[in-house]
Amino acid sequence: MRPRRGSFDDAFSPMVSMPSVVDLDAAGTRMEKDLLGSKEVPKNAYYGIQTLRALECYNITGIRLRNFPEFIVAFAMVKKACANANYKLGLLDVKKKEAIVRACNELIDPRKDESCKGLEMRENFLVDMIQGGAGTSTNMNANEVIANRALELLGHEKGQYEYCSPNDDVNKGQSTNDSYPTSAKLACILMHSDLLNAIKSLSKSFFQKAEEFADVVKMGRTQLQDAVPMTLGQEFHAYGNSVASDIDALTSAVNRFTTSNLGGTAIGTGIAADPHFSQVAVQELRSVTGFPMILADDLIEASSSVGDMIYFSGMLRRIAAKVSKICNDLRLLSSGPRCGLSEINLPPKAPGSSIMPGKVNPVIPEVMNMCAFEAIGNDVTVAFGAEAGQLELNVMEPVIIYKLFSSIRVLSRGINTLREHCIEGITANREHCKEMVHNSIGVVTALLPHIGYKKCTEAADRATRDKRPVADIIVELGFLKREEVDNLLQPESMCGPTAKKAKFSHA
Amino acid sequence: MRPRRGSFDDAFSPMVSMPSVVDLDAAGTRMEKDLLGSKEVPKNAYYGIQTLRALECYNITGIRLRNFPEFIVAFAMVKKACANANYKLGLLDVKKKEAIVRACNELIDPRKDESCKGLEMRENFLVDMIQGGAGTSTNMNANEVIANRALELLGHEKGQYEYCSPNDDVNKGQSTNDSYPTSAKLACILMHSDLLNAIKSLSKSFFQKAEEFADVVKMGRTQLQDAVPMTLGQEFHAYGNSVASDIDALTSAVNRFTTSNLGGTAIGTGIAADPHFSQVAVQELRSVTGFPMILADDLIEASSSVGDMIYFSGMLRRIAAKVSKICNDLRLLSSGPRCGLSEINLPPKAPGSSIMPGKVNPVIPEVMNMCAFEAIGNDVTVAFGAEAGQLELNVMEPVIIYKLFSSIRVLSRGINTLREHCIEGITANREHCKEMVHNSIGVVTALLPHIGYKKCTEAADRATRDKRPVADIIVELGFLKREEVDNLLQPESMCGPTAKKAKFSHA
Amino acid sequence: MRPRRGSFDDAFSPMVSMPSVVDLDAAGTRMEKDLLGSKEVPKNAYYGIQTLRALECYNITGIRLRNFPEFIVAFAMVKKACANANYKLGLLDVKKKEAIVRACNELIDPRKDESCKGLEMRENFLVDMIQGGAGTSTNMNANEVIANRALELLGHEKGQYEYCSPNDDVNKGQSTNDSYPTSAKLACILMHSDLLNAIKSLSKSFFQKAEEFADVVKMGRTQLQDAVPMTLGQEFHAYGNSVASDIDALTSAVNRFTTSNLGGTAIGTGIAADPHFSQVAVQELRSVTGFPMILADDLIEASSSVGDMIYFSGMLRRIAAKVSKICNDLRLLSSGPRCGLSEINLPPKAPGSSIMPGKVNPVIPEVMNMCAFEAIGNDVTVAFGAEAGQLELNVMEPVIIYKLFSSIRVLSRGINTLREHCIEGITANREHCKEMVHNSIGVVTALLPHIGYKKCTEAADRATRDKRPVADIIVELGFLKREEVDNLLQPESMCGPTAKKAKFSHA
Amino acid sequence: MRPRRGSFDDAFSPMVSMPSVVDLDAAGTRMEKDLLGSKEVPKNAYYGIQTLRALECYNITGIRLRNFPEFIVAFAMVKKACANANYKLGLLDVKKKEAIVRACNELIDPRKDESCKGLEMRENFLVDMIQGGAGTSTNMNANEVIANRALELLGHEKGQYEYCSPNDDVNKGQSTNDSYPTSAKLACILMHSDLLNAIKSLSKSFFQKAEEFADVVKMGRTQLQDAVPMTLGQEFHAYGNSVASDIDALTSAVNRFTTSNLGGTAIGTGIAADPHFSQVAVQELRSVTGFPMILADDLIEASSSVGDMIYFSGMLRRIAAKVSKICNDLRLLSSGPRCGLSEINLPPKAPGSSIMPGKVNPVIPEVMNMCAFEAIGNDVTVAFGAEAGQLELNVMEPVIIYKLFSSIRVLSRGINTLREHCIEGITANREHCKEMVHNSIGVVTALLPHIGYKKCTEAADRATRDKRPVADIIVELGFLKREEVDNLLQPESMCGPTAKKAKFSHA
Repeated sequence: MRPRRGSFDDAFSPMVSMPSVVDLDAAGTRMEKDLLGSKEVPKNAYYGIQTLRALECYNITGIRLRNFPEFIVAFAMVKKACANANYKLGLLDVKKKEAIVRACNELIDPRKDESCKGLEMRENFLVDMIQGGAGTSTNMNANEVIANRALELLGHEKGQYEYCSPNDDVNKGQSTNDSYPTSAKLACILMHSDLLNAIKSLSKSFFQKAEEFADVVKMGRTQLQDAVPMTLGQEFHAYGNSVASDIDALTSAVNRFTTSNLGGTAIGTGIAADPHFSQVAVQELRSVTGFPMILADDLIEASSSVGDMIYFSGMLRRIAAKVSKICNDLRLLSSGPRCGLSEINLPPKAPGSSIMPGKVNPVIPEVMNMCAFEAIGNDVTVAFGAEAGQLELNVMEPVIIYKLFSSIRVLSRGINTLREHCIEGITANREHCKEMVHNSIGVVTALLPHIGYKKCTEAADRATRDKRPVADIIVELGFLKREEVDNLLQPESMCGPTAKKAKFSHA
Repeated sequence: MRPRRGSFDDAFSPMVSMPSVVDLDAAGTRMEKDLLGSKEVPKNAYYGIQTLRALECYNITGIRLRNFPEFIVAFAMVKKACANANYKLGLLDVKKKEAIVRACNELIDPRKDESCKGLEMRENFLVDMIQGGAGTSTNMNANEVIANRALELLGHEKGQYEYCSPNDDVNKGQSTNDSYPTSAKLACILMHSDLLNAIKSLSKSFFQKAEEFADVVKMGRTQLQDAVPMTLGQEFHAYGNSVASDIDALTSAVNRFTTSNLGGTAIGTGIAADPHFSQVAVQELRSVTGFPMILADDLIEASSSVGDMIYFSGMLRRIAAKVSKICNDLRLLSSGPRCGLSEINLPPKAPGSSIMPGKVNPVIPEVMNMCAFEAIGNDVTVAFGAEAGQLELNVMEPVIIYKLFSSIRVLSRGINTLREHCIEGITANREHCKEMVHNSIGVVTALLPHIGYKKCTEAADRATRDKRPVADIIVELGFLKREEVDNLLQPESMCGPTAKKAKFSHA
Repeated sequence: MRPRRGSFDDAFSPMVSMPSVVDLDAAGTRMEKDLLGSKEVPKNAYYGIQTLRALECYNITGIRLRNFPEFIVAFAMVKKACANANYKLGLLDVKKKEAIVRACNELIDPRKDESCKGLEMRENFLVDMIQGGAGTSTNMNANEVIANRALELLGHEKGQYEYCSPNDDVNKGQSTNDSYPTSAKLACILMHSDLLNAIKSLSKSFFQKAEEFADVVKMGRTQLQDAVPMTLGQEFHAYGNSVASDIDALTSAVNRFTTSNLGGTAIGTGIAADPHFSQVAVQELRSVTGFPMILADDLIEASSSVGDMIYFSGMLRRIAAKVSKICNDLRLLSSGPRCGLSEINLPPKAPGSSIMPGKVNPVIPEVMNMCAFEAIGNDVTVAFGAEAGQLELNVMEPVIIYKLFSSIRVLSRGINTLREHCIEGITANREHCKEMVHNSIGVVTALLPHIGYKKCTEAADRATRDKRPVADIIVELGFLKREEVDNLLQPESMCGPTAKKAKFSHA
Repeated sequence: MRPRRGSFDDAFSPMVSMPSVVDLDAAGTRMEKDLLGSKEVPKNAYYGIQTLRALECYNITGIRLRNFPEFIVAFAMVKKACANANYKLGLLDVKKKEAIVRACNELIDPRKDESCKGLEMRENFLVDMIQGGAGTSTNMNANEVIANRALELLGHEKGQYEYCSPNDDVNKGQSTNDSYPTSAKLACILMHSDLLNAIKSLSKSFFQKAEEFADVVKMGRTQLQDAVPMTLGQEFHAYGNSVASDIDALTSAVNRFTTSNLGGTAIGTGIAADPHFSQVAVQELRSVTGFPMILADDLIEASSSVGDMIYFSGMLRRIAAKVSKICNDLRLLSSGPRCGLSEINLPPKAPGSSIMPGKVNPVIPEVMNMCAFEAIGNDVTVAFGAEAGQLELNVMEPVIIYKLFSSIRVLSRGINTLREHCIEGITANREHCKEMVHNSIGVVTALLPHIGYKKCTEAADRATRDKRPVADIIVELGFLKREEVDNLLQPESMCGPTAKKAKFSHA
């Protein structure tokens, strides 16, 4: 892989901005007006005065809407569905509808777009992810970009909103308070498939390794102390199942996002909207997205609630904690090479030290740990945001959404990195694993059903003190005969239930 | 209510210890022995040497096992199921089985217990909730108490473990690593019904209030700014739905706890257990508990996993955040009495101030907020614990379990307190609510479908500056006729979709 | 140690309630009255009607004021100082003052108290730590107990508040909003010395071990991979310093608590108080406590601020994270006995397993980890509480205070447990440590200044692949002569700067 | 303000990447080699093979080193100081030293740099902020960029490391484990001044407003209930003091970062470094930075410790919680315009709603709340990272550092936004404030020293029930004469201590 410009700065690394395709300054300005007065907007800009105000006010994270293309797509889907709904209800004429819908289509799939305007429009989603106003600036950024593109398509100049208005037409029947959370949830649905695939692949990768390591007998450890034997395959199989159990959990969490409050408008009462708008809009959204979108039962509750978001965040946090635990294990198991457990080898990815020659570190599990810590911290931010909702709206939605998006991204990237750069290349130190089992005291547990807790304890204690094999002690103490011990302590046979495997003389 | 001794120190307030029924010192001591040596145990004590060691090591929170009686019950159920299973598998003779089962029954339901030993035995669950050893001390506390009671029933002295052993008999086929988490999850199932009932009742209570307030028109607020009208009934209905949505969420989270790793023993391989033990034990547990207990597919994964616990904790956290939001609202809506929103009145519960005569404060929502904050903090502790699992076991289970229990308890008590002492007694200031709507500017939104965003903005702006009613301005500016405005701005009609309610001259 | 009744249920384990010395029901009731009406109070109770209301409303955690005796002492100190101040300002007559002061003294030091009423009074501090009303119930509980005891001393009946009133006399010149946080901060000062001593002793204990292990050469590890040699002494010395650095940090945090807002009354304006009251009261408090108490510059800011509490909580969280890291290390270093690092041995404290005979686990570091997780979670609760302050007061102070107290306690107990039951008994496996260094590849780093990064890398790489000693490779490759290598790779000499130790032929 | 390309993508918004000045692909590649093998690096790139490996492994957040220019500057300062130190110790020849120092200078201050290479070099700091390897990739990115620029200056080709090596020369005497944390702490010092200035200015701004509002009498509120009068000036003065108290706290936290472990190399033992290197290097760093840098007492402790980072993070969290509380207040106080408290007006910054015409929202405090929530969440990530340190190193430093940097930035930007766009333009609704005081019941508290708690309570109770002024009730009940009441209840006189202001007939 050779780092090219594109590999850092384009859609593959969408956290950093794309270079401006168009120099907004070249063409002078146009004048726009809103409740608070007039302002000059760059003539070429698809965004308008309200986006501009947001740019002036919110210079916060540097992470902009366009860094999350799925959010733009989701917004375009919502606006398209609403335009269709308004048209069907006779509230929007066919020309405007067509123009709005086409603008949305260009945003949704810029590659299909002949005019190639889609990417340029996406660049105009410039508002900072952290913003005041409960997402109004985001909604207006979308409304303005779509309206101005629609104007172009209708043969007008940008800014001639009398022919197609961001508020009266693109936003018709909606409020920020319904279109913003609906779009955000839709974006989560769109984004989550990366994470879901990452989880599925990771789980599969663990299962493959489990098969590969099915016959590697090793010591299991509890509390970091030698416990009883198991196979490395069993251990990796457990990792696979641990990760696999998130597939359903994540899916059921994301499914909650198909419930929309579209048409609830300002506070969920549907004021200023047509009484049929909600139902028709959600039906359209179902058709536009292909997802089983439904209308919330209680639009007022849905308007202020971020319950599904905190639910989803909790699930991301759970994934983070579980994968982080596995990474901790991988780092433990690969510790060494000579002064650690050294049961497995991770593929070397980088010289491990700027000063210690030859050192190779478990850098990939480490990076996944850090992704997990980020997601866990994000989850606390979400909890703060969720608790801070007041009355008919949760004004902290922007930070909640920002953190959900960030966690999805950092987890899916981290998990893919973990699989590709680490799991798939893990090898086992079979001999070393076997030797450790052989030397261990923990094997005495396998004798428990045969000689009881007390005698086992006595033998274990003595083996530890004398630094000798437990088997020898058992025989010496006359608890079992040599052949019985050898039989019972075959490593392979200790990796499963042992009670009735054999009936011996209970000495 | 009159505070009696019992009301602070008995089972109704189980966080504080019950007074010792028996003076353990009176009867001298007996000698017990384990891996580490011998110790004198109070002769009357049902617990034994390993519990005693735990008492010496873990003087941490002062909150003991016995402060969570459901945990004791759960443990007794598990031990009973295992005794039955071992008996069925021919591993335990009928006499021992009968004695163990009876001891367990006494712990499970002390009232049915003729000997009245159940409560005394419960008192012997003395280990601190925060303990090292991944719960071994808890498991041994249970094993010892049950074994000693069984010995009594069998006509032996306490401590004569050769006739019934805590390890070889009561713990037969088990490890701490399967019986402890199984019992903890079972305890969560037992405890969660309090919370579930609390949630159901709270939701119902909100719905009742919603009906009572169905005709109280008031201003909805977004971002604490006047938005558009709604009814107080709609607002309380939304609270009801918000809470009700937790019923399913909580239930589905708790249902995960029916999966048990019983019989996996030390690390899930089932070493030292009979190969049939797992299946039979879980079947017995199903019958003992009446819950649909099932065996985990992957016992190794299940042994180290606390995935279901962090899932459950996330759900408790979600409930906390949502109810806390509602309490914030109640405090806002009842702010005043003369210099706040003053839309509702909370029932006075205490003189509000030691210095400000006549002040009454929203103490009940406040206390619920604090319960929520506790649960949210507990959840972070759980996340730390979950992430810290290593290899074949999560040794942090005791603190995870302690925090889960605490959160369930504090949330269910808080929610019940909220409902009983606050919600049920809320009254509305109808007149004041109505006046505020009448005076508001936000009502202009209802005119949006009729005169458009721009004209509405102009009128709103002017009304704000001139401190005059928006309706007058609309008429003055010739946007609508007086009768049209009056018709459109009837409070009741503004609490739902308004777009097509009427067709007017669009001035 | 033999567990006696007292050892669980008395002042040594103050999280659990003390048994009632007096049966409150025996003597019938008296009638009391407040803003909200009349109620019957147990005749013998020192508390009064407002405490009773709090008992009815707040059945939340079961943890009561009396579980934190230092809080009661702190309150008594504040009330005593205020009584003195009011007397000096001519606002309280000498008789009442004397009675109030004596009641306070009895609470402060029950052992000095001839009447033996101090302990009984302390039992009357029954309000739940989590309570609404920003601490009003706590303040009134103190006011009522002190007033009723003063009445007794003055020869009146309990409840005859016309002779000494909880509000007008004991609370004179104060509000909950100044006396509650002042008392809470004072309690933190009182409680913190346990933690400070625990830290000091732990640090000292590590230093002693450092001396003991000064000549134990072992491998240092970074990222769990073998790095370069060091002594076990250096490692334990670092632990000592890590802990020692908290001494100043904790002290400087707790010192902020000497700033009081006493006399600010309701919101810090000092309404209803004498203009000189603040100054005089704080001066008295200085004299009563012996601490350098000062008055806050801005009483309004001080009334609503919990800035010092979140500061302090952050410091407790820092201690928790650091000690937890050390415990993780101890568990790693003692992992084994045969399949782990096995560099050190922790003193065995309990049989490690109910099923694995002979297993001994690092239970003490584990319990300290859990204490740390509790404190870290508590800190998040504090952050939530701190952020939730509104306008002139932070009504979440009760939960903040409760969590601060809990964290101080759990950390100091955990740290003392760690030292006594673990650190002091640690032994080193000298031979094993030495062998590991000898076999390691990391020693090649010591040659870096002599042969450069590239050659070192080559040798290290080859040693790893061939599973042979690095020294042999170096000689074979002709990078250094055998005697040079042997000289440079003496374990002891590698535990410090190595660059100029010798000048050799750079091959 | 007009959004130009530069305003989003350049150093003013350093979270997004700078456009590449040089097309790295144009000139083909050069071959480089390390422990793991060979790779082609773009010929023009200042970075080398190890940076390239990091780019391949760590595609995580999209936030790169160059998004935090202060981090690059800090690294350059450290490398410069080390080059100087090595030169003074005779370990680096003058030519190499000069070249390295000049390369560092260009990075430190690109504007002073004639060759204009500084900015291009900064662009080459491409590694993701979240990375494995405990910062090795970052250190190597710096070493490689500086070495290659030095090679250029020495007349060699990039990649000819035999003339100036990233490891042997630029990194001489150092390890990642000392240079990375030292640079990170230095970067925090550099970045914190933005935050410090933001805090100072905000505090000053509040004090100015306090003066402006000194005579605006208003109701103070506790628990959102009317309490007693105060001035708006007092309230804003308290905000000013609350913020000002962070100046010292932040400064003392950041001062801890002047302690460096430079020269401790791999694990703090100083292996491979000259014994004098530490002291000389830190002395040089003092001179290069102008900061009072000192060497840590215990380099081993310092190498693994992130204690100062968690300390600092806790302080950022405290600032966040406190400023967030103030923002909550501002939103409350400006609630309305007609159905809220409406005591103050925030400057309108954006049309508040896409659907509610005329609505203006408190968008600026809201955005600051969200910045605070981000910082609080980041702090939890830091706590996780801090706790996860193991043995001689904390491998989670990259995520800790990333979160510290992010919190500093988001807080300083948020606070500056708050001041500029909100605080400075706040106006008071004087009349409305006054009316509310006049109508309130809370004023009765001012009578407490004159008629006692009981009579005050009676009057307050009756005033509430009868919805009448408290003053009238007082007179009617004969508690005070009209002139006395009027005198005592003058709003201005109630904003301070009131007890002895006058001596009246105690009715």
